[in-house]
Amino acid sequence: MPELRKDPVVDRWVIIAPERANRPSDFAPAPRRPSGARHCPFCPGNEAETPPELLAGRPSASARDTPGWTYRVLPNRYPALQIEGGLDPAAEGLYDRMNGFGAHEIVIEAPEHDASLATMPADWVTDVLMAGRERMLDLRKDERIAYVLFFKNHGEAAGATLEHPHSQLIATPVVPGLVAAELAGAARHHEIRGRCVWCDILHQDRGSARLIVEADGFTVLAPYAPRFAFETWILPNRHRSSFEECGLEELQALARSLGDLVRRMNRALDFPAYNLILHTAPLRAPTLPYYHWHVEVVPRLTTVAGFEWGTGFFINATPPEDSAARLRESGE
Amino acid sequence: MPELRKDPVVDRWVIIAPERANRPSDFAPAPRRPSGARHCPFCPGNEAETPPELLAGRPSASARDTPGWTYRVLPNRYPALQIEGGLDPAAEGLYDRMNGFGAHEIVIEAPEHDASLATMPADWVTDVLMAGRERMLDLRKDERIAYVLFFKNHGEAAGATLEHPHSQLIATPVVPGLVAAELAGAARHHEIRGRCVWCDILHQDRGSARLIVEADGFTVLAPYAPRFAFETWILPNRHRSSFEECGLEELQALARSLGDLVRRMNRALDFPAYNLILHTAPLRAPTLPYYHWHVEVVPRLTTVAGFEWGTGFFINATPPEDSAARLRESGE
Repeated sequence: MPELRKDPVVDRWVIIAPERANRPSDFAPAPRRPSGARHCPFCPGNEAETPPELLAGRPSASARDTPGWTYRVLPNRYPALQIEGGLDPAAEGLYDRMNGFGAHEIVIEAPEHDASLATMPADWVTDVLMAGRERMLDLRKDERIAYVLFFKNHGEAAGATLEHPHSQLIATPVVPGLVAAELAGAARHHEIRGRCVWCDILHQDRGSARLIVEADGFTVLAPYAPRFAFETWILPNRHRSSFEECGLEELQALARSLGDLVRRMNRALDFPAYNLILHTAPLRAPTLPYYHWHVEVVPRLTTVAGFEWGTGFFINATPPEDSAARLRESGE
Repeated sequence: MPELRKDPVVDRWVIIAPERANRPSDFAPAPRRPSGARHCPFCPGNEAETPPELLAGRPSASARDTPGWTYRVLPNRYPALQIEGGLDPAAEGLYDRMNGFGAHEIVIEAPEHDASLATMPADWVTDVLMAGRERMLDLRKDERIAYVLFFKNHGEAAGATLEHPHSQLIATPVVPGLVAAELAGAARHHEIRGRCVWCDILHQDRGSARLIVEADGFTVLAPYAPRFAFETWILPNRHRSSFEECGLEELQALARSLGDLVRRMNRALDFPAYNLILHTAPLRAPTLPYYHWHVEVVPRLTTVAGFEWGTGFFINATPPEDSAARLRESGE
């Protein structure tokens, strides 16, 4: 069973998950299997090798855990957090711990091993977003789950261990530190200025050199103070605190935005590895006037080093005005 | 001129330093120079290729910026922050910025290109620590500098761009976020319990499965809630808030501890890349009853992925009790 432990100095929870040390990897430096056509547990025909599916797109009504799907959602075989058991919070002398309660799910985004957000039709990407939304709506029924992070690691440098296109959901029993910091900062901004900070960002940056593209109600921009080179945010123009309240039309527009952005990155940066993160309000939060859901996309171009780990200060050699210009010029 | 910019949501400063995009690298994927004996600007005889030295160990009184040194401290040719000009804080609409004022220095640790903390005599390592301390004492005379981070990136996966053994100092005009979080958390602990949190950690962990080794007044341990596999802390047993108040004898003992730890990591983990970070109180802080200077060492074994970047939550597959056992067994 994984465990949550809290650092007593900075109150930072970490997940200790020894089970994850046994994961297989497409990218292992010395593969034991002969090279050539590598075996993929996410490809159609290999459904028996994954845990039973929780949800799938089956347009021709094929049987569960058989081929014929367009996407599949399954529990992660090597979960960071597990849905069994309770939280059982306890002290260990000075320290605080609880069981690694939560959920960790995989969304296989397409049957094709070589598909990607850049090449998938927008309808397929919409299906993946709708599936993520459906899982969040289901997970939020469990009062013990505080937050669900929907994210994607693409490429080895971004931490992906399997090539087959997939995204992930991790449901946590506490609101994660970075999200809590966003909520607190945004609430403070709202208290002082009476406005949503992301609405203010949209207002200022749509007329700035940091704008990449705006279409169908979504604004894609390089943030003013990016931690990473080519860090990019996708903001819905319409203020809304929770992703899971979005309708089909909004997710269709987001899917088009995502595909367009990944194609721009592929042209500008030669098919980079990237992380994609969805930030939304905690589950079951009321409609918040100060929080604005959004997507953050970070291509993994540089190595994070000692100064960053030691200070939380990031050094970024690429001004966002430059990265925005490159991505603007890399449109279709 | 580099620039400091603040994220308006989470109040996180980042350094935008376009000059650093032009750095050379030993590790470039497609080196333009013919391979074989690579040219190193940090090797003896190449002193003219570096900025003039600020400090050096010259036992035979050789001339400045010539061979004959045992260590050299120089301004970084590709600084993240620069000592020229003022801070000039200003608003840009919604945003806050200031000039990238500060300092960025390199400590070349030994003349030998292939030396390392594992192989250098403890006296040489002591000299490097004393040089770092001397630079901190000098930089703290400038009231505009709030903090100096002394750190080391070893190996490409840890963000080093040159192989020749070196550490770095970055002086910042604001106290970095992670250090501020440590100060705030430690002050809270002291307020509630009347004790230093690191003294409490020492008290509890010296008798635990997380102890690696204790010698000469320094305790080396795996922390209770490590972000990374094999993360290791070196704590002085004696409570002291500022590193720069240490005397020669303490730094000699720290040098022995560092060499011993790196040799243990080399045996247990096959010569890993690592980051080494010194956390100390802000410059010119009075003696603090709640802050306890320490060293954090993190071998870079895994990739930080979307979940971590999106939440601040770290997933660690190696319990600290296991990593401590491995490092305990890897002693000389």
